Amino acid sequence: MGVAELNKIVIYGVGLIGGSFALALRQAGAVREIVGFGRSKTTLDEAMRLGIVDRIGESEAAEVADADLILLATPVAQMATIFARIAPYLGANTLLTDGGSTKSDVVAAAYANLGDKVGQFVPAHPIAGAEKSGASAALAELYQGKKVVVTPLPENSDAAIASVRLFWELCGAAVCELTPAQHDEVFAAVSHLPHLLSFALVHDIAQRDNRDLLLSFAASGFRDFTRIAASSPEMWRDICLANRGALLSELGLYQRELEHLHQALTEADAAKLEEVFRVSSQVRGSWKQQ
Amino acid sequence: MGVAELNKIVIYGVGLIGGSFALALRQAGAVREIVGFGRSKTTLDEAMRLGIVDRIGESEAAEVADADLILLATPVAQMATIFARIAPYLGANTLLTDGGSTKSDVVAAAYANLGDKVGQFVPAHPIAGAEKSGASAALAELYQGKKVVVTPLPENSDAAIASVRLFWELCGAAVCELTPAQHDEVFAAVSHLPHLLSFALVHDIAQRDNRDLLLSFAASGFRDFTRIAASSPEMWRDICLANRGALLSELGLYQRELEHLHQALTEADAAKLEEVFRVSSQVRGSWKQQ
Repeated sequence: MGVAELNKIVIYGVGLIGGSFALALRQAGAVREIVGFGRSKTTLDEAMRLGIVDRIGESEAAEVADADLILLATPVAQMATIFARIAPYLGANTLLTDGGSTKSDVVAAAYANLGDKVGQFVPAHPIAGAEKSGASAALAELYQGKKVVVTPLPENSDAAIASVRLFWELCGAAVCELTPAQHDEVFAAVSHLPHLLSFALVHDIAQRDNRDLLLSFAASGFRDFTRIAASSPEMWRDICLANRGALLSELGLYQRELEHLHQALTEADAAKLEEVFRVSSQVRGSWKQQ
Repeated sequence: MGVAELNKIVIYGVGLIGGSFALALRQAGAVREIVGFGRSKTTLDEAMRLGIVDRIGESEAAEVADADLILLATPVAQMATIFARIAPYLGANTLLTDGGSTKSDVVAAAYANLGDKVGQFVPAHPIAGAEKSGASAALAELYQGKKVVVTPLPENSDAAIASVRLFWELCGAAVCELTPAQHDEVFAAVSHLPHLLSFALVHDIAQRDNRDLLLSFAASGFRDFTRIAASSPEMWRDICLANRGALLSELGLYQRELEHLHQALTEADAAKLEEVFRVSSQVRGSWKQQ
């Protein structure tokens, strides 16, 4: 299978992640036909209208066997079911990848449901802002210059890994590798915890009687801090549950950090507050997003 | 004193807030001469070079008596000292305002140091992003379309309030009024707490052995959540201490919110997590920054 001759891609979930993958590979001229599956008829129809997919899939039996590549771009909690549905029809030359924000749980679902075909699945996580969702948010340029973390399995052949890396690179992404466990620890710290904290702040304020007054004075600091609190509740529920262990560990560390700050404030400990702020300001000020 | 004939403004602190005030009033053609005071010779020289101030002040005795308006745009912890220094020289027609992010403490400092001239001070807080600082960050447009909260004192005359409102409006701001206590409660919730939380997250990560690995995978969610963690450590130390009571109360509520989320995660309570995320997503998604 050469890249230029990718005859058919099947995508489960044609929203931001799946839709952008489709548009990017189309723009790269790398695919002849894209078939979409999904739970929402509305989203599928919109994906048709927007030229993201060529056809809406009717059954796994009809679509899976001759696909060159299958992308799972649904919320992670749905992936086990999808693995189970496609497993019986998987051709020997079909590769799978996914766009899930957690990896250990997706890998476990793959082992449980793909059986001896698990080597055809090369897990991936594209690091692309996902506070918007739906087919209408999909962009051919979404992955340009973004990182995609691939977390290969021992059962993957070098060729399978190379092909899946290439597909993501054709979307414009910079591909790097971690183990599934490493991936989940890293993203608990730099993505899942910040989302939880941002949701928590807006929820805290949303409960108040004077919430409209408060929000009327919120400015750019609040705006940016809470941008990710507009993210999909369902997706983030699933991510938090899927990466529960690592996230609980990160949340616990953060709660201890807040206890220290609460104590410093209670004691009016200017030096301690300034030291915390200074370290943060230096680290954040010199951080270059990659 | 008519606006067009503002002969002289004195500004303490010619960084982002004071410098932008100067540039905006210059652009509005509202002032003949601007004199700058400050602790940092470098900043004052830069403000001269950038055309923010016309002269660097030498002494309060020489500059304060004939000023039409004095703006205190230093960190709030320095304002008591400045009130004490200028009080002996304040002319009967000189108005004062400030750009401090907290109000109860600044008002207390004014009462303690201005004596029977306190009616000339109309406190203000311009709501303009302050994660950058220094004269080089000053912009004539900084206040365009931004809110400025004025917190009048019982001793202010209607004319004094109207004049100070007008100066801020000439900078392009929309002026509104709160009491100093209301102001501090509102901003503890929507500004001071988010800054503290953002500093805390970066500090938490900065302590780790694998901090560079973590930061290399941080993406746009992290970037926006932590933008305010690059803010001035000194300024935020002062704000946190100045508004300690209201901030401790907000921090306590937020810690309880995190305890609930920790419990929901521990119990894998999908419904509870989704409910919190859904409320947040709805409120944040429908919030229009004003």
